[in-house]
Amino acid sequence: MAPIVAQSTTMQTVHVALAERSYPIYIGEGLLENAAVLVQHLPQKRAAIVSDTTVAPLYLDTLVKALTAAGISVTSVVLPSGEQYKDWRTLNTVFEALLDQHCERKTALIALGGGVIGDLTGFAAATYLRGVPFVQVPTTLLAQVDSSVGGKTAVNLPRGKNLVGAFYQPLAVIADTATLKTLPPRELSAGLAEVIKYGLMRDTTFFEWLEENMEALVALDANALAYAVQRSCENKAAVVAADEREESGQRALLNLGHTFGHAIESTLGYGSWLHGEAVAAGMVIAARVSQQMALIDEATVQRIVQLLERARLPTKAPALGFERYLGAMGLDKKVEGGKIHFILLRAIGDAFLTADVPRSALAAAINSSS
Amino acid sequence: MAPIVAQSTTMQTVHVALAERSYPIYIGEGLLENAAVLVQHLPQKRAAIVSDTTVAPLYLDTLVKALTAAGISVTSVVLPSGEQYKDWRTLNTVFEALLDQHCERKTALIALGGGVIGDLTGFAAATYLRGVPFVQVPTTLLAQVDSSVGGKTAVNLPRGKNLVGAFYQPLAVIADTATLKTLPPRELSAGLAEVIKYGLMRDTTFFEWLEENMEALVALDANALAYAVQRSCENKAAVVAADEREESGQRALLNLGHTFGHAIESTLGYGSWLHGEAVAAGMVIAARVSQQMALIDEATVQRIVQLLERARLPTKAPALGFERYLGAMGLDKKVEGGKIHFILLRAIGDAFLTADVPRSALAAAINSSS
Repeated sequence: MAPIVAQSTTMQTVHVALAERSYPIYIGEGLLENAAVLVQHLPQKRAAIVSDTTVAPLYLDTLVKALTAAGISVTSVVLPSGEQYKDWRTLNTVFEALLDQHCERKTALIALGGGVIGDLTGFAAATYLRGVPFVQVPTTLLAQVDSSVGGKTAVNLPRGKNLVGAFYQPLAVIADTATLKTLPPRELSAGLAEVIKYGLMRDTTFFEWLEENMEALVALDANALAYAVQRSCENKAAVVAADEREESGQRALLNLGHTFGHAIESTLGYGSWLHGEAVAAGMVIAARVSQQMALIDEATVQRIVQLLERARLPTKAPALGFERYLGAMGLDKKVEGGKIHFILLRAIGDAFLTADVPRSALAAAINSSS
Repeated sequence: MAPIVAQSTTMQTVHVALAERSYPIYIGEGLLENAAVLVQHLPQKRAAIVSDTTVAPLYLDTLVKALTAAGISVTSVVLPSGEQYKDWRTLNTVFEALLDQHCERKTALIALGGGVIGDLTGFAAATYLRGVPFVQVPTTLLAQVDSSVGGKTAVNLPRGKNLVGAFYQPLAVIADTATLKTLPPRELSAGLAEVIKYGLMRDTTFFEWLEENMEALVALDANALAYAVQRSCENKAAVVAADEREESGQRALLNLGHTFGHAIESTLGYGSWLHGEAVAAGMVIAARVSQQMALIDEATVQRIVQLLERARLPTKAPALGFERYLGAMGLDKKVEGGKIHFILLRAIGDAFLTADVPRSALAAAINSSS
């Protein structure tokens, strides 16, 4: 199959269609320095950037300079880096900083960083003064293809991830693919887990393209990365447009691998596995459950496992035992009427939601994948 | 003028028109015992009631029994009572209780209490699992005519009131006017401040009706109270429908008296003045500023002062000095582009928003009203 790669020098725009909350995702190399793209979305000549101690040293100056040159008055808040800081305390740090700077209802918050910064800043934007404008500038592959698109914002509670949050759409998402060059290989792989997920859940052609191009992606080939980001965003945008608030079940399909993934993360304690790594192992469990229920065959499971391995992702969950996984899943947001909903596969590119999973299939899948 | 009172034995319904977020406000005596009105709005045969140590002993049993008899499984959370508990810590208590009870995305939160319980429970509902169904059962006059209508939810920060929150509409509001009988007189008066505000800002006929019926309201006349609640809700519903998120300036008019009122509350520390009391004194300051700017005459100011006094409300702000008031207003949410917006009066029933207030008029008004 020939690579379907667009020219990377031009900026691609993916449109997220949500009526009056619609917004564009701009994808391209060097967009951080091109302030015009961002500035057109700011309702006021002021903005507050929220970043963290990992990303700020790399990109904060670039963004501040570009915005300042475009006549925007900028303040910034740099938070400690890591999932363990995605909590109330850090959120309050942001609110205090915004109050110190007298940020107003029309002062946009710009999230510059990965998924944690995007989720936390988005929730701050959703709730500060009951909602202020919000722009996402994701700098990790995971954030570019997943967390910055779709309006899910949240913080964690001690009892679980993302238990408190809001659906709050940004005015724009600016994905500068040049920032992926500084990404540690493990984080690139974690992002690729979500990229693979789009193929697996609803886009067979993209899955096949990934089978052709995985080595190019791992080697940070600019064209391949730009295309993977674009196609992922297109898939996510289509799902979010059809089911913004996860009401019809369509959006829930984006959680393929996540029910098991969250169980891995929460059981091990956040931070030992990256989110994308847990999702990779979770997708293998979902595939194994599907196989146990005779929905897909061993060859299909192996195709999935092999693609994940080529993306340098784990395909086996930690051996914590079936009961501990079940307990961890009991608090999952996808619980309804006391039942856990699972996302299984009928084929590569065809995921579906069901509450009808025999305990034996679940036990066999978890035991054979961990 | 003849009283325009509808029969109080029948339930009145005021419709808040917000497209897919539209909802009814039911007003009537004994609605707490009539679970059918509430139950029709619950998406699941489970609900969690949030109340406080003041209201729970009076009405929690009644509501739980009515719901249980209607086949609803009910859990409840009773919080400490008072504005000082409208904070992160109490919010987390609610989240912990909801997690303990495995409350899900379709489990409705029911706020049973005054404005603090409504605001905090509403914000919990807006953010728990990124949003769960929400029903308001306001038990104070203030909550029935103001805070439970319009979807504003919030918690306080140490730096100011309602600085963090969300616009989140309930599925229904159930205002049982029988609950007003247990309201302390001071709280009844505080609620009347907001009732008077509607007349003052946009409803001359209602202001005149209040001039005719203030003694009946203070004496807890059932018919008069039901009519005042209904007419207040109609006014608020019309404003909220025209400007849900306070974007066009119309909704901002509901803050008549509040810019000064918040300054009084925050300067004295929350809890020493009731919100409605601060708003009453704030409305007199707004009237005095309007008079200083030759928009209204002394006789009009006196009409306002007299109606507030008959409602047993304070009409003079604490003498804290002009500079302290200015400082306290600097953090107000209504600040835009560094300027403070004021709501002034052209006449009784005709409020408007302006940033164009001479410092001298402000100083004279504050000094003469405190």
